[in-house]
Amino acid sequence: MSPHSLPHLLEDIRRFARAELIGHHAELDSLAEAPLPLYRKFADAGMANWWLPPKPGADGLSLEDSVEIVSELAYGDAGVAFTSFISILGTTMVDLYGTDELRETYLAPMAERGGFCATLASEQAAGSELARITTTATRDGDDVVVSGDKFFSTNSAFADFLVVVARSAEDPEEHLAVVVPRHTPGVQVERRWDMVGLRASGTYKVSLRDCRVPATHVLRGNGLRLLEIGLNASRILIATTAVGVARCIRDLCMEYAKRKSLQGGKLVSHPVFGAKLADMETHILVMKDTCLAAARDFDAVMNGPDPAAEFVRRGTMRSAISAKLFCGRAGWDIAGTGSEMFGGLGYTNHMIINKLMRDMRYVSIVEGGEDVLRDLLYKRYVVPAGQRA
Amino acid sequence: MSPHSLPHLLEDIRRFARAELIGHHAELDSLAEAPLPLYRKFADAGMANWWLPPKPGADGLSLEDSVEIVSELAYGDAGVAFTSFISILGTTMVDLYGTDELRETYLAPMAERGGFCATLASEQAAGSELARITTTATRDGDDVVVSGDKFFSTNSAFADFLVVVARSAEDPEEHLAVVVPRHTPGVQVERRWDMVGLRASGTYKVSLRDCRVPATHVLRGNGLRLLEIGLNASRILIATTAVGVARCIRDLCMEYAKRKSLQGGKLVSHPVFGAKLADMETHILVMKDTCLAAARDFDAVMNGPDPAAEFVRRGTMRSAISAKLFCGRAGWDIAGTGSEMFGGLGYTNHMIINKLMRDMRYVSIVEGGEDVLRDLLYKRYVVPAGQRA
Amino acid sequence: MSPHSLPHLLEDIRRFARAELIGHHAELDSLAEAPLPLYRKFADAGMANWWLPPKPGADGLSLEDSVEIVSELAYGDAGVAFTSFISILGTTMVDLYGTDELRETYLAPMAERGGFCATLASEQAAGSELARITTTATRDGDDVVVSGDKFFSTNSAFADFLVVVARSAEDPEEHLAVVVPRHTPGVQVERRWDMVGLRASGTYKVSLRDCRVPATHVLRGNGLRLLEIGLNASRILIATTAVGVARCIRDLCMEYAKRKSLQGGKLVSHPVFGAKLADMETHILVMKDTCLAAARDFDAVMNGPDPAAEFVRRGTMRSAISAKLFCGRAGWDIAGTGSEMFGGLGYTNHMIINKLMRDMRYVSIVEGGEDVLRDLLYKRYVVPAGQRA
Amino acid sequence: MSPHSLPHLLEDIRRFARAELIGHHAELDSLAEAPLPLYRKFADAGMANWWLPPKPGADGLSLEDSVEIVSELAYGDAGVAFTSFISILGTTMVDLYGTDELRETYLAPMAERGGFCATLASEQAAGSELARITTTATRDGDDVVVSGDKFFSTNSAFADFLVVVARSAEDPEEHLAVVVPRHTPGVQVERRWDMVGLRASGTYKVSLRDCRVPATHVLRGNGLRLLEIGLNASRILIATTAVGVARCIRDLCMEYAKRKSLQGGKLVSHPVFGAKLADMETHILVMKDTCLAAARDFDAVMNGPDPAAEFVRRGTMRSAISAKLFCGRAGWDIAGTGSEMFGGLGYTNHMIINKLMRDMRYVSIVEGGEDVLRDLLYKRYVVPAGQRA
Repeated sequence: MSPHSLPHLLEDIRRFARAELIGHHAELDSLAEAPLPLYRKFADAGMANWWLPPKPGADGLSLEDSVEIVSELAYGDAGVAFTSFISILGTTMVDLYGTDELRETYLAPMAERGGFCATLASEQAAGSELARITTTATRDGDDVVVSGDKFFSTNSAFADFLVVVARSAEDPEEHLAVVVPRHTPGVQVERRWDMVGLRASGTYKVSLRDCRVPATHVLRGNGLRLLEIGLNASRILIATTAVGVARCIRDLCMEYAKRKSLQGGKLVSHPVFGAKLADMETHILVMKDTCLAAARDFDAVMNGPDPAAEFVRRGTMRSAISAKLFCGRAGWDIAGTGSEMFGGLGYTNHMIINKLMRDMRYVSIVEGGEDVLRDLLYKRYVVPAGQRA
Repeated sequence: MSPHSLPHLLEDIRRFARAELIGHHAELDSLAEAPLPLYRKFADAGMANWWLPPKPGADGLSLEDSVEIVSELAYGDAGVAFTSFISILGTTMVDLYGTDELRETYLAPMAERGGFCATLASEQAAGSELARITTTATRDGDDVVVSGDKFFSTNSAFADFLVVVARSAEDPEEHLAVVVPRHTPGVQVERRWDMVGLRASGTYKVSLRDCRVPATHVLRGNGLRLLEIGLNASRILIATTAVGVARCIRDLCMEYAKRKSLQGGKLVSHPVFGAKLADMETHILVMKDTCLAAARDFDAVMNGPDPAAEFVRRGTMRSAISAKLFCGRAGWDIAGTGSEMFGGLGYTNHMIINKLMRDMRYVSIVEGGEDVLRDLLYKRYVVPAGQRA
Repeated sequence: MSPHSLPHLLEDIRRFARAELIGHHAELDSLAEAPLPLYRKFADAGMANWWLPPKPGADGLSLEDSVEIVSELAYGDAGVAFTSFISILGTTMVDLYGTDELRETYLAPMAERGGFCATLASEQAAGSELARITTTATRDGDDVVVSGDKFFSTNSAFADFLVVVARSAEDPEEHLAVVVPRHTPGVQVERRWDMVGLRASGTYKVSLRDCRVPATHVLRGNGLRLLEIGLNASRILIATTAVGVARCIRDLCMEYAKRKSLQGGKLVSHPVFGAKLADMETHILVMKDTCLAAARDFDAVMNGPDPAAEFVRRGTMRSAISAKLFCGRAGWDIAGTGSEMFGGLGYTNHMIINKLMRDMRYVSIVEGGEDVLRDLLYKRYVVPAGQRA
Repeated sequence: MSPHSLPHLLEDIRRFARAELIGHHAELDSLAEAPLPLYRKFADAGMANWWLPPKPGADGLSLEDSVEIVSELAYGDAGVAFTSFISILGTTMVDLYGTDELRETYLAPMAERGGFCATLASEQAAGSELARITTTATRDGDDVVVSGDKFFSTNSAFADFLVVVARSAEDPEEHLAVVVPRHTPGVQVERRWDMVGLRASGTYKVSLRDCRVPATHVLRGNGLRLLEIGLNASRILIATTAVGVARCIRDLCMEYAKRKSLQGGKLVSHPVFGAKLADMETHILVMKDTCLAAARDFDAVMNGPDPAAEFVRRGTMRSAISAKLFCGRAGWDIAGTGSEMFGGLGYTNHMIINKLMRDMRYVSIVEGGEDVLRDLLYKRYVVPAGQRA
């Protein structure tokens, strides 16, 4: 049986979360040097990069399965979850639009031994408007030379390879996605960002100076479009972290309410508390439903006859964006409610609710803020009548 | 091919909606005598009671299919949708917990020729607390005699049979569900309610005076529990009407915005309008996802080896309640946003937005208000840790 | 003592509301011929147009007083309140920017014997963008001739005079506000709108064909600017109707909850109900605070040395718009909560909650929708840093 | 002229904020040793404890004035604002219910030279239910001996005196408020809490072991009732900090938006951004209006003939609670919106939005969570019909 069968893996992940994450929040929240040693244990236990086929010909787990996995990981720690799944953004691009050689060289080891991929897209001036990026990729004989400054990119300090989105030097209207091994000369990590949450992960500012790679490292197709396709997967899993964090908040509230005395009984028996928890539960269910539905949408294309072409043709961005928009907001509401549940104690760092709130915040911000995603959803799917749900 | 194949039926229903519902809102909203003649056409076209097996041995459509159907019907008119699907509450109870003879006598004709079933549960003093109902069912030899006053019951004036929830005269702790043919002596429709919305449907106050039926008309099991099981189906479809009405509101907004001039362009190009519509679209998608997920939950039990026992054992109330809670609120928000979209004109009855808003309101109210359902969800599914999502 | 002293007037108005409004909702909601006979009683009792000085040299009541009055009137019926106060929009314009003769001819009789003024601004194509109106005012010797079509105007069918906002035929960049006696030849009421709420009031579509008035009937200054100034008063009172309707909803909930049995007690003792009512109470207080503050803002200018110039110079639009925006939304939330409080009965027209909800809806719509007002607030008061609160 | 005239003081405070607070967020947020040296400067400039009469016979500033002051201070830093005003809770109790000697001994120096008062009420098990406190005050001849453990109390480590709420040892139904000089033997600061926000302030856990003070240090009246009266003042000022923090968030957004490029223009010109900022502005205005109204309510009693008796008789809790409830929620919504405004950068600690969000959170939590306050508001002011607004 594959170590990657879902029920086994979920069981392993729950065990891992109990051993390494739950109760270790102070350290996980400390912005300790990344990657934390626990990622090594995660990989050694065969859990890393579960979506990649463990060996040629085998299947990785589906995105629907990934939703279950990320919900469990994020229940333990959202930063660990994020670090563990965010490589999917780049590996999806390489898997669909890279050569067999690229897949063999870069994906196979990740599947086998763990490791990370970082995607470098956003720039300081081109945050939500990626069409404005200035990083360039220049053809030079059989090579391509990449230069530019990338603002936010997760995992890049310790990734095995980077997928860099750049503008073609030959045709400024053309964007490329280029695989750049991490230790290519010219790749320089400029700083680690002091993030508000997800502090078990590492996000970096990176400069690229004349980074030379073979031209075969350029993925097939329009780099911005490929990025969008990779983002379908990662946005759904970002949305899913909200499910995990929300479940953790709910359980924290329930534990507290069972101990907390109120009006001669326990808080857990108070109807106003019950109404709030029921509302949390409803939203947890709905968030999960919509993440799973978006993941099935993605899987349906991935399992179709020609996923690379089909993703370009129609994509699955509507459901992915919608899941992220919805979970970002619903999760934030749950965090807000949770942060008021513990009285004054909840306003101290002796409880972890503030960490959970900070972690939750990222869902609405990372990989497209609400305004950007709503604009995209409106123009691509609401204005064209035939595209409406 | 069965007339009940989903794509065919959906096409028929869209055609029916265009012919009989869309553009007929004034009449549909007029509280005209029920049932409207269009229900006859609906049945004659073979669309009525699609969830019932069209003939013995065949299958009716699944609840997942019903979600698609009700979304289309409610896009046309929520009252027509409600009238058309609400029989499922009673038929599910009869189908699972009635004798073969009851199924043959009552369900087969409904499947074949159309017709309606009404479920009579709520009473004036026992609205949300059904355990307090005072309608009694008394054994008398081989018969059962039912007496009491039922407050709200949809379709009962023109139903073929009623499913009445009553207290056992022998044991006041026991509740029964009894099939009572509509024309049983003693069944009296006291009034039709002047409903705020859904005015193409008919909801009635009904008195039962010594209504005598064979004891075989009592369904197997605790009447309140059976009611809960039937409500799993109807609550999911009530939630689904919110999807249909919301889609109608969105399309109304888009049509208007394409014509409406604003600041030298059209409203449809204004970013604030776009942001609102994107938010509607997101919620429409999420509402549909959660209705479909709840329906699959229900179908999984229904298609299992012993659905009657399995529904009693664990039910599917969590997902059904959650869908209704969520869609009631999300739908109401969409209706509120929609009602402000048309300027002063939207505050006149020359536009249908007020009707749509009144129709939408029922989702949060009918078959369990929010407070009741949250209380249920909390006690059954959140307090017991093992039940949490 | 002036019949217009606030405590006396409030007492009279409460008595009037108990006698003529409360319990008469069916008729008030019926779109009966306007004006209803009760407005005659209102005027005969000396209550009409309380903000106008009862005789030359005396003072009318302040806008702060008007907030108290409108809150009481709207508690009885929002449509009656609206009909009673909306003349303030036009009378403020005439009072500040009309000649002594206009004041004497048009305002004095309104103060003494009652009567109505209607303001005609919006047009079909120029709803929120009044700068686009096409109604023209053409100089002809000592007269001005007004022609055009006005879309929404309240009270115009039975007003004594109209204040018409028109474009100058001589200079299309110039807008004028012209006093037009109601029975001027060429003034034609085209239709009464079938409004969703406020059905004790009358709102009309009016055409003006070559309506000739003396040139002295043109108010001093830019017509659009004068309109904005008049709207400061009326928008604050529109916001205030939300306070009255919200208080009525709250009291309706409390009455119901004292009678309604729940879980062995009464609904009034249930903590979840209490939490909702406390939230209503909080918002009622805050709504009233902000209406009073906006009214004091207005009164401060009105009582200053040169109100006509000062209103042009800086206006009080920020507080007026803010009150309307806030009360529209807070009132709507209260109406939504209220509409779910009465179980199934609240979804019938046997209770008045649906009427109250429809009435409440107008606050966000009439005299500037939310998007329009937010845009105005942003550009005029947020972007210029010195204008921020 | 009094150094405490409002316009002068406001100008001084703005200058102080620019010099000491704005731009010093990293240190203010660092949980540095309390009190920070800047409080000494604040006192030396004559700004401390502005509500106390600067000398016998003079007047301190009103609570309405305090709202203006706290809004400015909190614009600079909410923790500094909180530290500066929270003494008002205890000084109000001493001022109204203490002997002349207590006032002379404890309040006069605070007015003259600065200094702090801390109020010790909440205990670990008696958070929101103060009637359950176990700290006792025992008569012993002419002395009173106080013993117990207090959970959260701000400023107590460096206060000049404490106001301790205790249960009477003689009559467990009776609660007392006792003035305890900070350096009384037996007063022990157990720990400083690591607070989520307001980190320029200090909140402590304090134990009292046989703390002996003269019996004249017991304030007149029921200690819990006196606490409620003191809380009227402090809750209104807590609510007001939300105004200051919200104004700071708004200005931060505007500064950013003027620099940030978007779609060929600047973010500041984008309508969706404008709509959000207008919404913030509306809520800032409304929050301020309701704080000012509550403060005037308080001042009206304070300036009446017998404030001590009148506060006991009717209090001003309704408006104070309502202001805190409303500002807590409205402020939190603004913080949430603000936290999404800056893209990925807003999710790093290179911007201060996360600090502002953490600071804002306290408004809903400190001195009574939402559920507790709503329960109080409902029972005291909504259930008794005559008390409703």
